[in-house]
Amino acid sequence: MIEHGGLKGLLVVAHGSRREPSNEEVRSLAGRIGDLAGPEVVSVRSAFLELARPSIPEGIEWCIRDGAQEVVVLPYFLSAGRHVMEDIPEVVRLKQHECPGVYIRIAPYIGQSPDLAGILLALAQAG
Amino acid sequence: MIEHGGLKGLLVVAHGSRREPSNEEVRSLAGRIGDLAGPEVVSVRSAFLELARPSIPEGIEWCIRDGAQEVVVLPYFLSAGRHVMEDIPEVVRLKQHECPGVYIRIAPYIGQSPDLAGILLALAQAG
Repeated sequence: MIEHGGLKGLLVVAHGSRREPSNEEVRSLAGRIGDLAGPEVVSVRSAFLELARPSIPEGIEWCIRDGAQEVVVLPYFLSAGRHVMEDIPEVVRLKQHECPGVYIRIAPYIGQSPDLAGILLALAQAG
Repeated sequence: MIEHGGLKGLLVVAHGSRREPSNEEVRSLAGRIGDLAGPEVVSVRSAFLELARPSIPEGIEWCIRDGAQEVVVLPYFLSAGRHVMEDIPEVVRLKQHECPGVYIRIAPYIGQSPDLAGILLALAQAG
């Protein structure tokens, strides 16, 4: 991991759903990331833009309480719509203003991963 | 690839967006899957549930015209909402009824891939 500021928190940010099992899928994913992450990652949490809790500012706060000196927001979105391009950056910008001692950055959204093609091919082969 | 019926077509199915670049992201992803796929895959295409073309029945039709004897629908959705659980299966069921000579099946949606945790961790490390 490229070192920016020591201990890190990762925050998986999804849209949020009225259907609670969809929110649980995101929380479970955060748990699996935690199992894979190295010792510099002190916190892996999930948060939601709307319709579910915690909110993104709450999720960032929890990462900081867990000891994170840098928080990486991971947008769990497949395309670069308004949520990814405007809403999440705005919420993060406000929180960064509130917490100048912590470095908060936004990673590329998951739809940008070059590995998705291989994942879909693997799913096609699975059945 | 587990062999069901010889030559295969893969159809990446996304929701569809009024924002055309989001639809183009899906088409481009289908192209990258085509680059990775083996010789038994004669067709990789994309289709949309709504708001963009081709439709799912059109996409399946195109795979068949490309020579596919089996069409694998790949739902490009992160959670198991109504689109994944009801809408796509219903459209596929109707198309299967129209095309009894071709085996059409639906792979797990991409949100079910066990590899997503590793992908998010890689994206966190990238920036």
